[in-house]
Amino acid sequence: MIAVLCGGVGAAKMLGGLVQVVDESEITAIVNTGDDTVMHGLAICPDLDTITYTLSGSVNPETGWGLTGESWQAMGALERLGGSDRTWFRLGDRDIGTHLYRTGRLAEGASLSEVTAEIAAAFGLRLALVPVSDDPIRTVLTLPSGAELAFQEYFVKLRHDVVVESVRYEGAARARPGPQVIEVLESADLVVIAPSNPVVSIGPILAVPGVTAVLERRRRDVVAVSPIVGGVALKGPADRLLVELGGEASADGVARYLAPWIGTLVIDELDAGLASLVADAGVRAVVAETVMSTPDRARNLAHTVLGSLGSPGQPRESSSQREPG
Amino acid sequence: MIAVLCGGVGAAKMLGGLVQVVDESEITAIVNTGDDTVMHGLAICPDLDTITYTLSGSVNPETGWGLTGESWQAMGALERLGGSDRTWFRLGDRDIGTHLYRTGRLAEGASLSEVTAEIAAAFGLRLALVPVSDDPIRTVLTLPSGAELAFQEYFVKLRHDVVVESVRYEGAARARPGPQVIEVLESADLVVIAPSNPVVSIGPILAVPGVTAVLERRRRDVVAVSPIVGGVALKGPADRLLVELGGEASADGVARYLAPWIGTLVIDELDAGLASLVADAGVRAVVAETVMSTPDRARNLAHTVLGSLGSPGQPRESSSQREPG
Repeated sequence: MIAVLCGGVGAAKMLGGLVQVVDESEITAIVNTGDDTVMHGLAICPDLDTITYTLSGSVNPETGWGLTGESWQAMGALERLGGSDRTWFRLGDRDIGTHLYRTGRLAEGASLSEVTAEIAAAFGLRLALVPVSDDPIRTVLTLPSGAELAFQEYFVKLRHDVVVESVRYEGAARARPGPQVIEVLESADLVVIAPSNPVVSIGPILAVPGVTAVLERRRRDVVAVSPIVGGVALKGPADRLLVELGGEASADGVARYLAPWIGTLVIDELDAGLASLVADAGVRAVVAETVMSTPDRARNLAHTVLGSLGSPGQPRESSSQREPG
Repeated sequence: MIAVLCGGVGAAKMLGGLVQVVDESEITAIVNTGDDTVMHGLAICPDLDTITYTLSGSVNPETGWGLTGESWQAMGALERLGGSDRTWFRLGDRDIGTHLYRTGRLAEGASLSEVTAEIAAAFGLRLALVPVSDDPIRTVLTLPSGAELAFQEYFVKLRHDVVVESVRYEGAARARPGPQVIEVLESADLVVIAPSNPVVSIGPILAVPGVTAVLERRRRDVVAVSPIVGGVALKGPADRLLVELGGEASADGVARYLAPWIGTLVIDELDAGLASLVADAGVRAVVAETVMSTPDRARNLAHTVLGSLGSPGQPRESSSQREPG
């Protein structure tokens, strides 16, 4: 059994690699909910949906989020009514179907874990997809002016193009871990931290009571993949956030940030020269090609991640997502 | 100034006639909110939207509700997730844009009156479109078994094909009339009760404290159009509801139902023989062609309604909605 701590796009790619080398049912994805929001009355869980859409092959390959072949009638109507101030967070028509379902089920009293499992099953996923908590967690960013931004305002509306002074995970301190989160972390053969933003994607997961205690205890079984390659984030603001919050935008900066909870960090070949600095942080460095630009590369990275501790689970070859050549 | 008490489809047609003979800005439509519901988290106001869509020429002419040229991607996605049990209340993609806007504005603290005015203006309406109250009113139907149905479950899901024992308007007794409702009813030259279901469309309006008091006082200035023609409702379950609740499905049954509040009832030519029974109820009968199957017929009926008390406002001819021939 493998547990994977997940943000959105980077984690979805990592999971897409892992399902090529271990049976999907052996994987539990424990997902960040700090990005979640209620917009126009709809309960929106960007990271959960990105993983569901990606693993089911329905994701829009150009954006990495949302559905492929999407239409935008609702957004067009909303924009005519309220202007672009209401439509900066783009919700496609089919994607809205997901949010309608989730919002309706939550209103009926279902937990986010239950709804997430229902949606994942309807999309044909066989892994366990679980939110880190059923209680609301909201990532809030504070600017030097003291102004506070909800995560999606920061990330989407302002395209993370502002200086951040601090980050907090509202609700996390009193959030209960999801039904199987602690149990899975304790019993998994391996815990993988996906190459997601350490601050705003992995941070909220670590902030849920009980999570870091298990990781500290099992530190040798925890392997992370650096989302920073050559000093820059492959996607999003991880690089500048690490710097703004007093860390460093480098593979060794990631190692120092995650050191209390990881025994191994997979860093990119581009950063091979930083391996000794990673080791100085008390973290074993494994050098590999980490940029998952194709399903084959994602599979290769998954092999590396699993092999970094001796492969748990039953490796299997799958040609379903393999590219020719 | 003309005040019109409105349900959905029948009222929208009546308003479509009135705007052909008086300037639209002279009209205030006071609309039933007992049909309103929250579905999948979205605030839905069927009667308000039917009027907005109809008067703006955007209504689906085949159904009388929803938008013309609509797409159904969100419903398709929702059905794949939750089955037909979640999609019996059909929400088109563009229509969802309206509900997203309304739900978002209400969550921001706007009143239903404010949001309704914003939507009406965006659709180009010039009349005043006002919900009877900004406080929630919910029409609930009780079956002989004692089971209770929310209005849309009764009307749409069960296609009103069940026996009803009683109807109540939840929340109405403590609902405050909308900001200008009482003032408009008091100052209007004429109050029109549209040919809407007297029980479930007009009933909730009458149940809001203060409304019947004004109508009783101004009874001679109130004219209704019978929604029952030849003993049957032109649309919906008005005929059987009137019978099930102890009244009669006839023009004179409508007269007796509304007698405390109307001085005049416009009845269809088909029911000319019932005029003396209407008079027996203490209501003046005006016989006219009431079936608004074309914009011309709606305009003629509007002329009759206005003329029934001597036409207030400035009659005007408009060819914009007139059909050829």
